[in-house]
Amino acid sequence: MDFIGADCAFDAADAVIFGAPYDSTTSFRPGTRFGPSAVRSESFGIETYSPYQRKDLAEDARVHDAGDLELPFGAPDRALEAIEAKAAEILDAGKVPVLLGGEHLVTLGAVRAAAKRFPGLRIIHFDAHADLREDYLGVRLSHACVMRRCHDILGDGRIWQFGIRSGTRDEFAFMESGHVKTEPFSAETLSSLSFPEAPPVYLTVDLDVLDPSEFPGTGTQEAGGMRFADLLARLLDVFARFNVVAFDNVELSPSLDPSGRSTALACKLLREELLALRRRG
Amino acid sequence: MDFIGADCAFDAADAVIFGAPYDSTTSFRPGTRFGPSAVRSESFGIETYSPYQRKDLAEDARVHDAGDLELPFGAPDRALEAIEAKAAEILDAGKVPVLLGGEHLVTLGAVRAAAKRFPGLRIIHFDAHADLREDYLGVRLSHACVMRRCHDILGDGRIWQFGIRSGTRDEFAFMESGHVKTEPFSAETLSSLSFPEAPPVYLTVDLDVLDPSEFPGTGTQEAGGMRFADLLARLLDVFARFNVVAFDNVELSPSLDPSGRSTALACKLLREELLALRRRG
Amino acid sequence: MDFIGADCAFDAADAVIFGAPYDSTTSFRPGTRFGPSAVRSESFGIETYSPYQRKDLAEDARVHDAGDLELPFGAPDRALEAIEAKAAEILDAGKVPVLLGGEHLVTLGAVRAAAKRFPGLRIIHFDAHADLREDYLGVRLSHACVMRRCHDILGDGRIWQFGIRSGTRDEFAFMESGHVKTEPFSAETLSSLSFPEAPPVYLTVDLDVLDPSEFPGTGTQEAGGMRFADLLARLLDVFARFNVVAFDNVELSPSLDPSGRSTALACKLLREELLALRRRG
Amino acid sequence: MDFIGADCAFDAADAVIFGAPYDSTTSFRPGTRFGPSAVRSESFGIETYSPYQRKDLAEDARVHDAGDLELPFGAPDRALEAIEAKAAEILDAGKVPVLLGGEHLVTLGAVRAAAKRFPGLRIIHFDAHADLREDYLGVRLSHACVMRRCHDILGDGRIWQFGIRSGTRDEFAFMESGHVKTEPFSAETLSSLSFPEAPPVYLTVDLDVLDPSEFPGTGTQEAGGMRFADLLARLLDVFARFNVVAFDNVELSPSLDPSGRSTALACKLLREELLALRRRG
Amino acid sequence: MDFIGADCAFDAADAVIFGAPYDSTTSFRPGTRFGPSAVRSESFGIETYSPYQRKDLAEDARVHDAGDLELPFGAPDRALEAIEAKAAEILDAGKVPVLLGGEHLVTLGAVRAAAKRFPGLRIIHFDAHADLREDYLGVRLSHACVMRRCHDILGDGRIWQFGIRSGTRDEFAFMESGHVKTEPFSAETLSSLSFPEAPPVYLTVDLDVLDPSEFPGTGTQEAGGMRFADLLARLLDVFARFNVVAFDNVELSPSLDPSGRSTALACKLLREELLALRRRG
Amino acid sequence: MDFIGADCAFDAADAVIFGAPYDSTTSFRPGTRFGPSAVRSESFGIETYSPYQRKDLAEDARVHDAGDLELPFGAPDRALEAIEAKAAEILDAGKVPVLLGGEHLVTLGAVRAAAKRFPGLRIIHFDAHADLREDYLGVRLSHACVMRRCHDILGDGRIWQFGIRSGTRDEFAFMESGHVKTEPFSAETLSSLSFPEAPPVYLTVDLDVLDPSEFPGTGTQEAGGMRFADLLARLLDVFARFNVVAFDNVELSPSLDPSGRSTALACKLLREELLALRRRG
Repeated sequence: MDFIGADCAFDAADAVIFGAPYDSTTSFRPGTRFGPSAVRSESFGIETYSPYQRKDLAEDARVHDAGDLELPFGAPDRALEAIEAKAAEILDAGKVPVLLGGEHLVTLGAVRAAAKRFPGLRIIHFDAHADLREDYLGVRLSHACVMRRCHDILGDGRIWQFGIRSGTRDEFAFMESGHVKTEPFSAETLSSLSFPEAPPVYLTVDLDVLDPSEFPGTGTQEAGGMRFADLLARLLDVFARFNVVAFDNVELSPSLDPSGRSTALACKLLREELLALRRRG
Repeated sequence: MDFIGADCAFDAADAVIFGAPYDSTTSFRPGTRFGPSAVRSESFGIETYSPYQRKDLAEDARVHDAGDLELPFGAPDRALEAIEAKAAEILDAGKVPVLLGGEHLVTLGAVRAAAKRFPGLRIIHFDAHADLREDYLGVRLSHACVMRRCHDILGDGRIWQFGIRSGTRDEFAFMESGHVKTEPFSAETLSSLSFPEAPPVYLTVDLDVLDPSEFPGTGTQEAGGMRFADLLARLLDVFARFNVVAFDNVELSPSLDPSGRSTALACKLLREELLALRRRG
Repeated sequence: MDFIGADCAFDAADAVIFGAPYDSTTSFRPGTRFGPSAVRSESFGIETYSPYQRKDLAEDARVHDAGDLELPFGAPDRALEAIEAKAAEILDAGKVPVLLGGEHLVTLGAVRAAAKRFPGLRIIHFDAHADLREDYLGVRLSHACVMRRCHDILGDGRIWQFGIRSGTRDEFAFMESGHVKTEPFSAETLSSLSFPEAPPVYLTVDLDVLDPSEFPGTGTQEAGGMRFADLLARLLDVFARFNVVAFDNVELSPSLDPSGRSTALACKLLREELLALRRRG
Repeated sequence: MDFIGADCAFDAADAVIFGAPYDSTTSFRPGTRFGPSAVRSESFGIETYSPYQRKDLAEDARVHDAGDLELPFGAPDRALEAIEAKAAEILDAGKVPVLLGGEHLVTLGAVRAAAKRFPGLRIIHFDAHADLREDYLGVRLSHACVMRRCHDILGDGRIWQFGIRSGTRDEFAFMESGHVKTEPFSAETLSSLSFPEAPPVYLTVDLDVLDPSEFPGTGTQEAGGMRFADLLARLLDVFARFNVVAFDNVELSPSLDPSGRSTALACKLLREELLALRRRG
Repeated sequence: MDFIGADCAFDAADAVIFGAPYDSTTSFRPGTRFGPSAVRSESFGIETYSPYQRKDLAEDARVHDAGDLELPFGAPDRALEAIEAKAAEILDAGKVPVLLGGEHLVTLGAVRAAAKRFPGLRIIHFDAHADLREDYLGVRLSHACVMRRCHDILGDGRIWQFGIRSGTRDEFAFMESGHVKTEPFSAETLSSLSFPEAPPVYLTVDLDVLDPSEFPGTGTQEAGGMRFADLLARLLDVFARFNVVAFDNVELSPSLDPSGRSTALACKLLREELLALRRRG
Repeated sequence: MDFIGADCAFDAADAVIFGAPYDSTTSFRPGTRFGPSAVRSESFGIETYSPYQRKDLAEDARVHDAGDLELPFGAPDRALEAIEAKAAEILDAGKVPVLLGGEHLVTLGAVRAAAKRFPGLRIIHFDAHADLREDYLGVRLSHACVMRRCHDILGDGRIWQFGIRSGTRDEFAFMESGHVKTEPFSAETLSSLSFPEAPPVYLTVDLDVLDPSEFPGTGTQEAGGMRFADLLARLLDVFARFNVVAFDNVELSPSLDPSGRSTALACKLLREELLALRRRG
């Protein structure tokens, strides 16, 4: 079953969805492995038309849904290799990979692929958690370290974080040392970021950046988050002003929200992102 | 069991509650049939007194609760006939029908009764969804078409929609052609509607107009909705400035919200509506 | 997504699964519309191999999964036409239709198709409820009447019911008048049914025949039901001794069982039925 | 809303249902206060006809439903007084009180009323727990002490317990000293109890005597319990051979069983009990 | 298991957490007895570091966790005595008692202890409900009366209420007569309260003051509540400007919120309160 | 918080409980990481006294609860090392390790420790699943391979499996080749196993060997399982006739069973096992 309106053949597509149903390093409450399939099946509860952008996914976008990777639980290094390979395949075909998590660690696979192909890559990162630990109980390939691993690749000043409202003292010190640029709690400074030419950007959205009242379906909920309308406006701005070469939505854990509204929100957000993506060529 | 404070005899009442526990055409997740009974039984968790209006349902309003209709699942035409008959009986007694859904289709029965008795009838419609389809999988008596069927009766310019944030391209084109007046996403223009004399109004509140964080207990949740405080203020304004001759609250699906707060909110909103209703004669 | 192991092309298949996600006439708690998709997605939690029959679905059976019909809620007559048409198409290709409900009413569509093609058709019916009402609140196309409608087609003595433990006094009188043959509460007499030549049989399994402890995921639960091991043994006997020309499993309502074991059981039972089916030609 | 089929006027009734929605002394997981209302509202999911007894509640029994008592939480002595008064009123009218709990403590109120009116009263007690503590954290009016309080009234040899499979060493010593007669784990000796004349019996059924697989909706679940079919047979035997002057079903906690089958079972069991009750006069 | 970071020995601590897992007088939906244990076990899902205050619970505060009291259900007077004794022991050691409920009645025990030791004690009270009834069904020691009982001790003008949005006409009349100072719906006037010297304050936070969208895990949910960010800011202001000698957080009922975010919020709020508390000596 | 009655100091104990809250290789639905803490906190809902064995955990057994290991998610090899080290420490002190899972993989750590110390070690294995795969998606340290890894250590004929009712064709072929001794579906042959001297036995109980009706709280539910009473009798027989040198209970996933009865059963089973264990010295 494809995501609603994502019925374009691979060759004709501008963007390609693929799922990484993986949550093997999750330290608190697992369940994000069911995110991608929930997003697909529940997408039939939303419309393909967006009144926000006045565009229709079935008519105004060319999206292919490549299904889910089969990833080995208990072997994060091999899972990341598979994710990197898939993202590389899509990028090499001149398309935008759209990765659905799974836990946040999966981002690392796609970032590795993108960084190799876009030397000036930057990351725009929405999240409640800093994810900047050097290691977690000795494990370096952990969801809690994913942005630190991205920093290992990209270096200082290339990662912009928004909405962060949880972390250790060490993580906040790391931010304040300028290794990454972080706006805690909100994303108001995003609009003032500007560049002569739109740089290549990897956009990663940990959906727990949203307030848990609007998005309870995630493993580690942090009160005091962003509202959907605010996040949507920020993301549309990112797509309008930057060259988003790949993006992901991660950390939806459907069964933690029996009402189903978290999955419905994730579907709607993905529709908006796909419609906001710049058409290739 | 009556709704709390609704213990007036029929003859002495200004308003008469009746339930239409029907969800036979629901296309996504059913369950609204349990709305009316949940509202009654959970109403004992709220007070009869409103600090918003400084009035008490047990002392300052005269409301009768007529219980639920028994409606045949799988036969929408006959269900609507039964709803129309009940609403007609109440209207003919000079009282205000207060219809509790059930799916939104039930509104059509009550609107039919009201339109026959109030020639200049207008509809004020709060909803996340336009409900303006000509048909749904070939079915014209569907929740997804209910406002289109109302438009069939009332004609152009008589339906005002607020809060709409989902629909097909065709539905939005229908709005933009002026058949109905729609403010998408919000209800700010409502306060500027004014008339020399208060016209007769049928008020229909699809509770999914609220943000799913505040009202998750509904089948098709749309992120980015109205807040309770805003909706309450708008509704009090409607009751103050218009001649509401009948109204309904629909699409509560209690079991989708295990916390029970959606039902509690529906109880509180109904209390406020009943207190805001103009006294007859 | 196909049912696990059901990856045979239509032309090469002996059996063809199709879903009828319909619950529009359900009188108590709806939700069976999500049965077919749940069975497919959760089937990946079971193995293709059966230690009961020592056969493997991927190697020892030829099954095609034709997906779900799109059925109009609120229009039972049209839904039944679509089901009949699909079953007819499969039967006319010399294959066995395997219908996944949905509510029990969907059986009627498939029985209509089978009865036209197999003049001596009999029905073997496992259920907690008699489903023999003449009408339900005036509606004749209701889940509560489905076996009565089948009796309208087949006539007396052609329907054998097992496990029935709920019904009205009128329904039990109808049984006792010999219109249908019913063993209430259990299925012990099934093994004594025998025929010189295996007659064509439509097998319909309302999963609520099982005890609610083993199968809580259904809308109208009746304590005192059959155990899985007993039901499985009875069904294997049916497939061994009769010519099952079509069969269905109905009334799984996944969301009523948060543990998911009802869906898991339904997957396992379907695997066993598919493996027990006689190979064509 | 009355229990299904219990629509007889008080004066004409043989049996009178009343609810005691009380769980103030519950030591583990509360929630039984919602038992009586759940039994009433869910009773519309069962039939009035019993194929077990071939009788119909609407035709073959005369039952009045007196609704629920309003009981003060935090004041067990006053709650018991209210229960005793209600049971006394029913007994004095020559009718059988049918008490729906609530926690097991409520039984004490009804036993007090019955013991005053039937000097030779015996208690038949089905339960997973002995409920024979002298006190619980110093509180003597506790659900954990209810049968000990009954023993205070009736004295040795008048209480017969079945199905008990949990208790302290002291409670089992109390049984073994002969103060009460207890068959642990099962109820096989019940059929051998016999008397020249049917003595007056108060029957109390703590529904957790059932196996938690069949009846999960109770606060303190004990694996290894009785099956519904066995319990039903035992109860029908009690009603057939003894003069049941009052009875109760207690400890249903609906929200602990999201599938709803515990409430459905409680409804069915109550139907059978009401049909099995001897007609007065 | 201690609350995260609360690993200081009693003698060295500035603040001492203790739980009162009691909900015996709860009139609607019980369950707050599980609040304290849920807060402890789920606290491991948050960090000890606060980016709001830039302090770390493990390094910048000295907190002891004394575990839970064992309280007798069904005997509110004795439960309150135990709570008062524990609070007194902590106060007499020169430390701040931090009481975790349980229902709101438990506050009375701690207020009794504080009032005896701080003659000029004032109460700052956040709540959705006034809790000012003289009695509830004749019971004076009820959660619905707790602030009235506190008023019995402190007298007029010493209790300041914020966020109240539910009560009877009598309760609102009591406020308006000046016995207590109440800002309904919000807490904007709090910042204008000022004193030459910081008076001793007992702070009681009924968590249902929050909007049910952010905090659904409570028994009696009232739409239209405060937001987490606003409440946090108000509380930090209280700790900054007043001499908080004891405080409590009550009415978390974990099982009403299957997503777990209410408990997560309660953990985070407690961390912030503990970090905001003035260091002793 | 210790398991109820397990309040013996380490040095004085005969048995030592420790938890391995790990589910990193779980291939279907994770959640067993919460098993150990749920068993501890819910153990206060059962009694310490067993009417089955007429012994009391607080008086007749000497059990220490060592709490939970902190295990790194995403690094199964290191997790197993930690488990082996803990089991070795307990064995070297002459005590019986009692391991609470977590997923079934954790067993391997404890078996490694036991096999090194007891050369003739045998394994008695209750499970619904064979767990005999050579690898799972290329991962050899997976829950689906755990008994195969144990076979790597112990060799042919030393593992006895009971209750197995799911596996691949290859796994059943492996059994039938005599590498392990398997009784599928049940455990009737267990009583006929006998030895001149009681050999050292590692007992591993995957709780999904139970029927899902009695134990729904596990990730991969297989209909047709054992009943609690049968399993208990078998286990008491194992403890009576063999020298159990270590044992485990694994695969409880509490959140899959909202009724809580799976955890309650796991507590009760553990109590019985601890009471059945032979006293050391």
